[in-house]
Amino acid sequence: MSHQQYPSSLLENAVNEFSRLPGIGRKTALRLSLHLLRQTEAEAEKFGNAMILLRKNIKYCQVCHNISDTDICQICSHPSRDSHTVCVVENIKDVMSIENTQQYKGLYHVLGGIISPMDGIGPSDIEINSLVQRIEKEEIKEIILALSTTMEGDTTNFYIYRKLSPFNIKITTIARGIAVGDELEYADEVTLGRSILNRVEFTNSFK
Amino acid sequence: MSHQQYPSSLLENAVNEFSRLPGIGRKTALRLSLHLLRQTEAEAEKFGNAMILLRKNIKYCQVCHNISDTDICQICSHPSRDSHTVCVVENIKDVMSIENTQQYKGLYHVLGGIISPMDGIGPSDIEINSLVQRIEKEEIKEIILALSTTMEGDTTNFYIYRKLSPFNIKITTIARGIAVGDELEYADEVTLGRSILNRVEFTNSFK
Repeated sequence: MSHQQYPSSLLENAVNEFSRLPGIGRKTALRLSLHLLRQTEAEAEKFGNAMILLRKNIKYCQVCHNISDTDICQICSHPSRDSHTVCVVENIKDVMSIENTQQYKGLYHVLGGIISPMDGIGPSDIEINSLVQRIEKEEIKEIILALSTTMEGDTTNFYIYRKLSPFNIKITTIARGIAVGDELEYADEVTLGRSILNRVEFTNSFK
Repeated sequence: MSHQQYPSSLLENAVNEFSRLPGIGRKTALRLSLHLLRQTEAEAEKFGNAMILLRKNIKYCQVCHNISDTDICQICSHPSRDSHTVCVVENIKDVMSIENTQQYKGLYHVLGGIISPMDGIGPSDIEINSLVQRIEKEEIKEIILALSTTMEGDTTNFYIYRKLSPFNIKITTIARGIAVGDELEYADEVTLGRSILNRVEFTNSFK
């Protein structure tokens, strides 16, 4: 299928658009397009409009920068959440992952990226200044850094750590270690090493 | 992720719509939705509109029922194609597959399905009557049946064969056999059996 001929430019257009999505090749794009053709006109319109409106009408919480239907998101405006604790994450998906654990009752701060000189992303391109402003304004007692353990994540962690050092605030990072259920022999050395260094008291490990 | 909470109803809506597509689960749907969120508003609108217009403005060729941008498709209206030969296929995708081979220069007739009593699809639900009308009207000399070798495909083949028997027309079916490059030992028995029964003269096999 080096140069696929399409019987209709509308179909070709739809295939092109689908195949621009990550992980969707031209064959899958064709399959999805033909599926849409078999839907009713109303269903296809519902599909297309959902995609247009998602991008057009999405709001970002003015406090934590998570996506939201309202100016202040449900988490930031929730009365029973612990407003003294803020977990710093890279993106929206991380918030959703942590929320799914149902273990965290504090607030979030979504950076919208991490510092990556290679990609031309500096500290001012992500929401670090607004984090500092929150600390100046709100009564935050603990910042949990929950970025990925990559070079960029570590850089960003360190940058934030330095920025926040003037404040009387506890700065923590999420525990790294062997995943629950994983066997030691398959763990990578760095993780295993850290999990020994950062060992916790046995009675605490069930909390 | 038994009950995923979405931070925005727009996002939830987009995820729902994406996950209605075949082969796309909720995790992939979320990934695709977040990808759209990172696009510009114009790009997201282009994506959504392509899907809406595909279904809304698509035309079907009045002759062969393939999809088309015009009332009569490019293949049917092409002056150098052999209008005496019509290949009967189940759907649009089959036309595209055969066109890709660049081996066929005749016309098509897209049934839009095959007879399947289990799914409640009878002969009148697919484009068989219009095929008969074409044979009455056009100067067709050969009908090539290119349906899948399933129970439903065989049923449909036989039904069309009987419908067309009053006409003085050659009815053929595409060759079944061992795929080019395949080894005999891995071929299924039915295919191997047929490929021996329907053997061709050695000199013809390179045509």
